[in-house]
Amino acid sequence: MLDEIQIIKPDEIEKRSMEIIAAELGDRSWPEDEWAVVRRCIHTSADFDYADHLVFSTDAVKKAREAIRAGAVIVTDTNMAAAGINKKSLARWGGSVRCFMADEDVAEEAAAKGVTRASVCMERGAKLDGPVIFAVGNAPTALIRLYEMIQAGELKPALIIGVPVGFVNVVESKELILKTGVPYIVARGRKGGSNIAAAICNAILYGC
Amino acid sequence: MLDEIQIIKPDEIEKRSMEIIAAELGDRSWPEDEWAVVRRCIHTSADFDYADHLVFSTDAVKKAREAIRAGAVIVTDTNMAAAGINKKSLARWGGSVRCFMADEDVAEEAAAKGVTRASVCMERGAKLDGPVIFAVGNAPTALIRLYEMIQAGELKPALIIGVPVGFVNVVESKELILKTGVPYIVARGRKGGSNIAAAICNAILYGC
Repeated sequence: MLDEIQIIKPDEIEKRSMEIIAAELGDRSWPEDEWAVVRRCIHTSADFDYADHLVFSTDAVKKAREAIRAGAVIVTDTNMAAAGINKKSLARWGGSVRCFMADEDVAEEAAAKGVTRASVCMERGAKLDGPVIFAVGNAPTALIRLYEMIQAGELKPALIIGVPVGFVNVVESKELILKTGVPYIVARGRKGGSNIAAAICNAILYGC
Repeated sequence: MLDEIQIIKPDEIEKRSMEIIAAELGDRSWPEDEWAVVRRCIHTSADFDYADHLVFSTDAVKKAREAIRAGAVIVTDTNMAAAGINKKSLARWGGSVRCFMADEDVAEEAAAKGVTRASVCMERGAKLDGPVIFAVGNAPTALIRLYEMIQAGELKPALIIGVPVGFVNVVESKELILKTGVPYIVARGRKGGSNIAAAICNAILYGC
């Protein structure tokens, strides 16, 4: 059985994987900075649907990298996404990852207001100084709250990564973000997740 | 735009999502404990391929729940999977999650031996007392090392969750686990990930 395993150095595996992804996508092509995001999402999920689902506002990746180099904070809606982001790469530019989901006072405020914790977390993120990238891999209510704050003129995010996954309000919440006029990277449809949110952050970071 | 959003209570969303998943799978059915795993993997990815890819050894979920109730430790190959597992549910039974990937001495040992950190992490897990569930969402080398230790009579895991994702040695490493004779839940093929590993752990936990 073991003789079917390819002997390949750990640092070669990612390179070889990216070559396989490119080969299987055939003639399709993207601008270089968007391609870095598309292939990393496929690399983290082995799901080629992301080639069709990912949409980018004009210069989204370029603007995100400028924000990172200016010390942007990345706010996530799950600790799982936070765990997946390369925090060493981010720290090189002075940035950090923040996730407020497990904070006790967030749970209390959400219960008192009758809203989700994710919604309260986005409000916390909106109050941070400097450029903020919101990476949403789980909660459509997070995207809805971001949309509301942008519409009310209360928030100008450096980027919204809108990739919640699921079956209820997920598709609709992503479409809202496309209407905001702020920089976005969105996986349209049902698919996404904390792993995809982290993969997009890392694709941005690795090109900084 | 906002009028397209369904008003639905947070605790209703999961229930409604599971109903949608069941409806879309039509006539297909699984034993109740396997169904809990299948639907949670689809819930966390919106990817119905898991209905075809997931395979279970006889009574795998039942045996895993017995191990959890006996205080099993869950060993993961990423901090992202560890972050996604419901640690409160696990702690009710005395168990905990361990991930050695970020430990400095693991990196040193891996470099000295010329193996991957994931491989060293599995060796650490094998030395733990009591029942151990290995949840592998990333590294095929982790599954290969588990296979070797089992073949050598050095390890009897309570369960192997074999769901690494990727393009190099991933398919082959999963097939190895199917030959071990130990309890397993495996997503055959390329797909999987830390999110899937955590989802399977949680499906097991929520039925304890």
